[in-house]
Amino acid sequence: MKSVLVLLSGGMDSATLLWLSKKEFDKIYAISFDYGQRHRVEIKYAKDLAKMAQVEEHFIVEVPHYSVLKGSALLDQEASIPKGEYPQEEPPITTVPMRNLTFISIAASFADTLEIDHIGIGVHALDSPYPDCRPEFITSAEAAVNASSIFVAKTKKRIHIYAPFLGMSKRDIALIGRDLGVPFEKTYSCYVGTEPPCGECAACLQRKQALSFL
Amino acid sequence: MKSVLVLLSGGMDSATLLWLSKKEFDKIYAISFDYGQRHRVEIKYAKDLAKMAQVEEHFIVEVPHYSVLKGSALLDQEASIPKGEYPQEEPPITTVPMRNLTFISIAASFADTLEIDHIGIGVHALDSPYPDCRPEFITSAEAAVNASSIFVAKTKKRIHIYAPFLGMSKRDIALIGRDLGVPFEKTYSCYVGTEPPCGECAACLQRKQALSFL
Repeated sequence: MKSVLVLLSGGMDSATLLWLSKKEFDKIYAISFDYGQRHRVEIKYAKDLAKMAQVEEHFIVEVPHYSVLKGSALLDQEASIPKGEYPQEEPPITTVPMRNLTFISIAASFADTLEIDHIGIGVHALDSPYPDCRPEFITSAEAAVNASSIFVAKTKKRIHIYAPFLGMSKRDIALIGRDLGVPFEKTYSCYVGTEPPCGECAACLQRKQALSFL
Repeated sequence: MKSVLVLLSGGMDSATLLWLSKKEFDKIYAISFDYGQRHRVEIKYAKDLAKMAQVEEHFIVEVPHYSVLKGSALLDQEASIPKGEYPQEEPPITTVPMRNLTFISIAASFADTLEIDHIGIGVHALDSPYPDCRPEFITSAEAAVNASSIFVAKTKKRIHIYAPFLGMSKRDIALIGRDLGVPFEKTYSCYVGTEPPCGECAACLQRKQALSFL
């Protein structure tokens, strides 16, 4: 019995991860975060995707402290989201500090309690401008989760971070998703948070390019 | 310029850490968490301690997901808190899953944004029944924080987890605190959450024993 709790944003990467998980795991859970993101509309897409994928349970978790903190263009309605691809240097201004570590920690508290032995995250090679999407982050986050786990202390098993797209491009993900029948038209990726999506931010551009190969 | 953000519960360990930080750092911040703990009254004590220590800023952060999750006697008003010392085996039922990892992640998002280069945590040797109070947890949490930090990516500096009590007993902390003039009578440690404290839970017993040496 292998189980997974998938971090589900509602975008094409995490949706593909969810569909891939249906093949790879016996029990699938999903978790989504309401953290004051300006593209909060993505949660609605995540809910629909979780239903379509028939997960055991979809947890929606509030993470209120980012609203106090700001410090990222993704959290600030007033900030302008840059158009075009990520810049080459420095973490982008759309970085949310410690987002994946916080999300993994919270997901791990569910995994630990429910004895779910994998936490799934859809990070990929094109995410690498963000420090918390790189392999060294995933490795160290897994170590921290296991060092603090009650489940691990009791059973001597391990909680794995399942990040199968870590070395892949978004194009690879699009191809995998197509083969798995992921309903890409029901996913949402835009940083700006409008419906329809802006079509000009880095998230929209990457998505458009990835899906153009299909 | 060395700065620190101290995880402040309102108990004698984190209060002593705050007073020690006043000696060791140029700028001191504090952060406390409202996570649905039954001993929520501790936040009031934390606020008063932060004021007395004249910190730059005291952040109070809501962490709502534990109320959904339960899974610990500390989160459940109905559960009975065991009387007496921690059992020898297994993590105690008062363990809150991934609490320190979640708290450190959230603290790190403040540290990262405000460029605070230390996160202080008052874990000590008597806390060792809890997996997330052990040295291997602290080391791996520090690695994960640094791997995901924007501040570190930009400056090539490091965010340190400052855990000076890691190998100490609570008695050592009491002695240090006395020398630093920590107002122990203004700290609160009870798991049950009553005022006055129950006097019979593991937290109350450890505190009583530690302070008996003064």
